[in-house]
Amino acid sequence: MHINQPFAVPSLTHVDTKHLRLALVEAQWQLRSEKNKPDARGVLVLVSGIELAGKGEAITQLREWVDPRLLNVKAMMPQTVTTPQPFWKPYAQHTPAKGQVTVLFGNWYGDLLAAAMQDDINQQQFDAQIALMRQFEHDLAANGTTVIKCWFDISWKCLQERLDKLDSSAQKWQHLHGLDWRNEKQYREIQQWRQRFYEDWFVIPGEDADQRDLQFAHLILDALKTKPNTLNASISNWKNAEIPAELLHPSASKLEKESYQANKDKLQKQVAGLLRKQVKRAPVVVVFEGMDAAGKGGSIRRLVEPLDPREYEIHSIAAPEPHELLHPYLWRFMTRMPELGGITIFDRSWYGRVLVERIEGFATEEEWRRAYDEINRFEHQMTEQGYILIKFWLSISNEEQLVRFKERQDTPHKRFKITEEDWRNREKWDGYLQAAADMLQRTSTDNAPWHVIATDDKYTARVQILQAIAKQLTVGKS
Amino acid sequence: MHINQPFAVPSLTHVDTKHLRLALVEAQWQLRSEKNKPDARGVLVLVSGIELAGKGEAITQLREWVDPRLLNVKAMMPQTVTTPQPFWKPYAQHTPAKGQVTVLFGNWYGDLLAAAMQDDINQQQFDAQIALMRQFEHDLAANGTTVIKCWFDISWKCLQERLDKLDSSAQKWQHLHGLDWRNEKQYREIQQWRQRFYEDWFVIPGEDADQRDLQFAHLILDALKTKPNTLNASISNWKNAEIPAELLHPSASKLEKESYQANKDKLQKQVAGLLRKQVKRAPVVVVFEGMDAAGKGGSIRRLVEPLDPREYEIHSIAAPEPHELLHPYLWRFMTRMPELGGITIFDRSWYGRVLVERIEGFATEEEWRRAYDEINRFEHQMTEQGYILIKFWLSISNEEQLVRFKERQDTPHKRFKITEEDWRNREKWDGYLQAAADMLQRTSTDNAPWHVIATDDKYTARVQILQAIAKQLTVGKS
Repeated sequence: MHINQPFAVPSLTHVDTKHLRLALVEAQWQLRSEKNKPDARGVLVLVSGIELAGKGEAITQLREWVDPRLLNVKAMMPQTVTTPQPFWKPYAQHTPAKGQVTVLFGNWYGDLLAAAMQDDINQQQFDAQIALMRQFEHDLAANGTTVIKCWFDISWKCLQERLDKLDSSAQKWQHLHGLDWRNEKQYREIQQWRQRFYEDWFVIPGEDADQRDLQFAHLILDALKTKPNTLNASISNWKNAEIPAELLHPSASKLEKESYQANKDKLQKQVAGLLRKQVKRAPVVVVFEGMDAAGKGGSIRRLVEPLDPREYEIHSIAAPEPHELLHPYLWRFMTRMPELGGITIFDRSWYGRVLVERIEGFATEEEWRRAYDEINRFEHQMTEQGYILIKFWLSISNEEQLVRFKERQDTPHKRFKITEEDWRNREKWDGYLQAAADMLQRTSTDNAPWHVIATDDKYTARVQILQAIAKQLTVGKS
Repeated sequence: MHINQPFAVPSLTHVDTKHLRLALVEAQWQLRSEKNKPDARGVLVLVSGIELAGKGEAITQLREWVDPRLLNVKAMMPQTVTTPQPFWKPYAQHTPAKGQVTVLFGNWYGDLLAAAMQDDINQQQFDAQIALMRQFEHDLAANGTTVIKCWFDISWKCLQERLDKLDSSAQKWQHLHGLDWRNEKQYREIQQWRQRFYEDWFVIPGEDADQRDLQFAHLILDALKTKPNTLNASISNWKNAEIPAELLHPSASKLEKESYQANKDKLQKQVAGLLRKQVKRAPVVVVFEGMDAAGKGGSIRRLVEPLDPREYEIHSIAAPEPHELLHPYLWRFMTRMPELGGITIFDRSWYGRVLVERIEGFATEEEWRRAYDEINRFEHQMTEQGYILIKFWLSISNEEQLVRFKERQDTPHKRFKITEEDWRNREKWDGYLQAAADMLQRTSTDNAPWHVIATDDKYTARVQILQAIAKQLTVGKS
């Protein structure tokens, strides 16, 4: 979408409004009726602008014209950026499912403007954040969430006139939030900042109430009706990665039990100490991926053993629930990311997109090929806020997996760990190996590198995992 | 469940553990496999206790014995009660769905103890809160969530020995939270407080690690396997309420447009001002119920017109989504309640339990008859924290409904408001009227009274709604 200026709107007459209302309601129900189709979409409307430019009034008017039961409005006060977190964190849970329309009144741009006005960031940082936000919205769009952005604008003179006319209770309320709108310097400053994110926004002049409401409603209608162009993702030149030796033939070097015990206890304590130090600065996310029976569960147990359950959270990721399928695939991970002070461990993760979803065909070829870049950006949005991302691929040999499968089958209290599906996945060994190789090649980044750990020998693996965490937590900290 | 003392546990042998693990995993899967059945349950485990009594270790051990993918652990720091909110608010979103087991490490009892230790409340208030919490848990149980409560206990001497042995990083972490566990007076004090909620808790001695872990795991196993007794709800003496005249023959007194306009604008401003004042003290919840076309949407529009969308949130309640059906019926409302400063408006509400669910048979007779008391308690948990609950039943006559249905059908942009279902509901007019009468009689309480508003004349209705809100917001405030 590249419209720099709002299009012309016919003048407001009674007849126009009736047609508009009908069109809006029909478009809403159309969107909703398609929510389970492959090209289903949600619509996310970001609203920002000058105070008293009529954002609230336009939303209130919109609610009268549409079917209000199919419109979500989430209004949040600017998040003062006191803790490191990706810009989407406070809002992710409110983004629309497919079939829904959500107006986010208060959003990441508002937070950014607030930070800029408080001199917390300079122009370069501001522009860098805008670039990240656009990528994020681009990735949302590619995964079924149409994003439109509306800036409600009024002149300095108009703003002052409206402030004069405010009644007292509204004035008090007004006073609690935002900037000093009586200060012309501040007004000019905010206008200068927002010029920097001008081009993919719709600017709605707020002077004339009828025109403003009509323009806003027409924008929503347009977003409801227009299917986005297929995104030109440069994914046609696909080339499989070579499968590295560490995946084909995981090392089988052995560690004796005594030497393991001695090492392990020391390392566990060291890692616990490092984690406790780290989370005071920024959250930690640890991801475990690997073939079935590669030792994900056991590795997690050893990692958390010296910690208190109040210090971490573990998410075991299974197939998405029906309501989760109505969101972009990253949504159920965005909404589970830790806050400052937290450690979150994923037993399987968003990499399912390029592993199981690729191999089982739950994602289309276009979708999973595109996902590598999307995931890199998603992780970058966290690491650039200081999040530590530690990713493990547990590499088991085909033979050792068979041994463990049989042991699971023969041990009553372990039988729950092995299902028909695990045997079926085993048949697809080569496919999963290729998927892992591609994943490792394409998503190992400076700030979020993959650690490949051979797990045929459990003792060696556990020690190496702890060592890798310790290393990643101390790198660049000395 | 009325076990005051933990039962005897066989001594820990290798064989025991294997059996226990198998039994736990089987019980977990059994619970999960029944999640869509009528008597499905979730299990909620509340864990509290003396620091270093081994709560964390027991949970970590439990995770090793069970299928960890079917166990949720949510650990939260005590919520210092700085804002008025019902005790369940920070935790409601983490309570288990049917088929799930959730350990809440950090829960309403922890918050209450923290408040007591900080001298924020006296013994009488403490006991009153305990009573509310037990009712709440009783209602959870009646609606499919088994609740068990475990207190991990160690002696003062044992606590001091363990503190001596803590390594430095754990010590630092420990130091951040909770009380000064080196202070014997505080230890005695907390023990005295917790004696007050002793009787329906399982006390697990934390001195012996093996015994502790086994006891905890056996408690969970027991909770997983034991179907709760059918609750002896005294609902057999049911007597329909008489249908009051204001439902049978809603007043049709008319207000002229001019007088309406003059009144309305003034009232809207007054109400907006009162709401803004009120939400500084505690949140406001406004509920609109009524027959189809009784004017719920229009009333909400007039109420919010002078407000900014950042000041309120509107929830239009439709049939629950599949994942919502896996929770007690109040869950999707608990998780939508406003925080301090917020106004939440419900277009239909939890009263669906005794209206549509009763009439359409989605709730059993036992369930909806029980629901009146459950709802009264639910509302009391909010109002005793200062929440203002304003409830409207919009009373339309059968004839006027027909007029509006026809108008909706004949107006293209209003046609979405009328469906086959609305016509079917109209056939059940008398049933809904009876349900409304019973609801008004049984759930109109001092702190959360119903306002019955005749809506055949829209102008009169809108003015009366605003007047009722203004009145409820000023009562007792003069």
